[in-house]
Amino acid sequence: MALSKNNYKLIRSLQTKKGRAKHGLFVVEGKKSVKEFIRSNQFQIRMLFSSDMDGAHNLGKSCEVLTKLELKSISSLSNPDDYLGVFEIGLPKTPCEDGLILALDQVNDPGNLGTIIRLCDWFDIKQIWCDKGTVDQFNPKVVQATMGSLNRVEVVYLDLEQSINQSSLNVYLSDMGGESIYDTEFSETGILVMGNEANGVSDKLRTRGRNVVSIPHYRSEGAKTESLNVAMATGLILGEIRRQHNLFKT
Amino acid sequence: MALSKNNYKLIRSLQTKKGRAKHGLFVVEGKKSVKEFIRSNQFQIRMLFSSDMDGAHNLGKSCEVLTKLELKSISSLSNPDDYLGVFEIGLPKTPCEDGLILALDQVNDPGNLGTIIRLCDWFDIKQIWCDKGTVDQFNPKVVQATMGSLNRVEVVYLDLEQSINQSSLNVYLSDMGGESIYDTEFSETGILVMGNEANGVSDKLRTRGRNVVSIPHYRSEGAKTESLNVAMATGLILGEIRRQHNLFKT
Repeated sequence: MALSKNNYKLIRSLQTKKGRAKHGLFVVEGKKSVKEFIRSNQFQIRMLFSSDMDGAHNLGKSCEVLTKLELKSISSLSNPDDYLGVFEIGLPKTPCEDGLILALDQVNDPGNLGTIIRLCDWFDIKQIWCDKGTVDQFNPKVVQATMGSLNRVEVVYLDLEQSINQSSLNVYLSDMGGESIYDTEFSETGILVMGNEANGVSDKLRTRGRNVVSIPHYRSEGAKTESLNVAMATGLILGEIRRQHNLFKT
Repeated sequence: MALSKNNYKLIRSLQTKKGRAKHGLFVVEGKKSVKEFIRSNQFQIRMLFSSDMDGAHNLGKSCEVLTKLELKSISSLSNPDDYLGVFEIGLPKTPCEDGLILALDQVNDPGNLGTIIRLCDWFDIKQIWCDKGTVDQFNPKVVQATMGSLNRVEVVYLDLEQSINQSSLNVYLSDMGGESIYDTEFSETGILVMGNEANGVSDKLRTRGRNVVSIPHYRSEGAKTESLNVAMATGLILGEIRRQHNLFKT
């Protein structure tokens, strides 16, 4: 069965945020990721395509078999895998103040958001609050980089300033010139705010009384590395918070 | 002045390891990176191209002005920046046992190696020892991802098994099922070995008496995140080693 013109147009349109919003759908690529999205059942599957004739029915869902060329025509990858699934975005998640929350203030790069979602899965962060300027969680590059973690970490888009102001949790802003994360006594619950790749945390979030924390720079002289990547910085801070509360389970 | 056919062929050939080895040259792209490579003087510049007529002479080196299309034809980037420099690889660095050494056992992904070099710059690791199967430091994607850190961190390719066996430093192997990095007392000097993205540390390096260390997994039930990316894992372990020795300078 060949790929219908309608499906071609629909799936291509899901590469843009506008298209995803219009149809309420997003794309997952790669056998491993598609399998995990189906199994975890967080998002309902709407369509499944594969260029692997034999494996297509092993996923337990009805699947349309395409040629490799057809699959490539609807893929956002330069080297598409054999599987592509279309899933329903569903209803937006409700913010909750359970445990440690990661807040992203306009993180732009899809790879960074994807890596951060995967990190939150590792560190058992249940919700990420994103300011509306942050890249869309259903952007194909984000979905790709999460390696399935999107099924276990809720990403909520909201007015970050308002939500933080209304919260009673401790707020930690990650930025230059703050207290070393290794000298900071983090509370077990709280909101850790990471800023935009180029501009850091917005001024509107820097209210008096909020802790600014920094990853100390080791090099003392002639230091030229200007900053760590935002995903790496998030990893180092989350690791330190979890270490302080000795909550690791090996 | 138009791009000569010889230069076109030469620069295109530097996208492969074979071409770089033959000519002893590699490519740096982007104004910021090119500037940093020129300034730091670790690698001698051989040729400089720019599509920015006005800025071309600001770098203090003679520069050939190209059209944007010509520059794109020799670039390895899909959106090339205005500057491309060709630098000499120079003589290979000699291994030394100064302080903390990071050893990479067949890390394949250029983006991972680039991120790791940048991390080592942040954490003041002076040398990275790479097993010969590890991706080439002068691969254009590696150079791009280091953001200039390649000028401050030495990357040495060697027989990792032999070099580690001959060293008197403590060896820490990062792998699953080891002691938590938060329970390990790291010595201030030593060799931290990170393994291949898919297969971890090679069996030949797992000699008796070597410490195997792991980043603890926080999620206890239904944990599905199989592993952290090797660059992220490197960052978390280096951060913990530096924290234990309180060597940070803010």
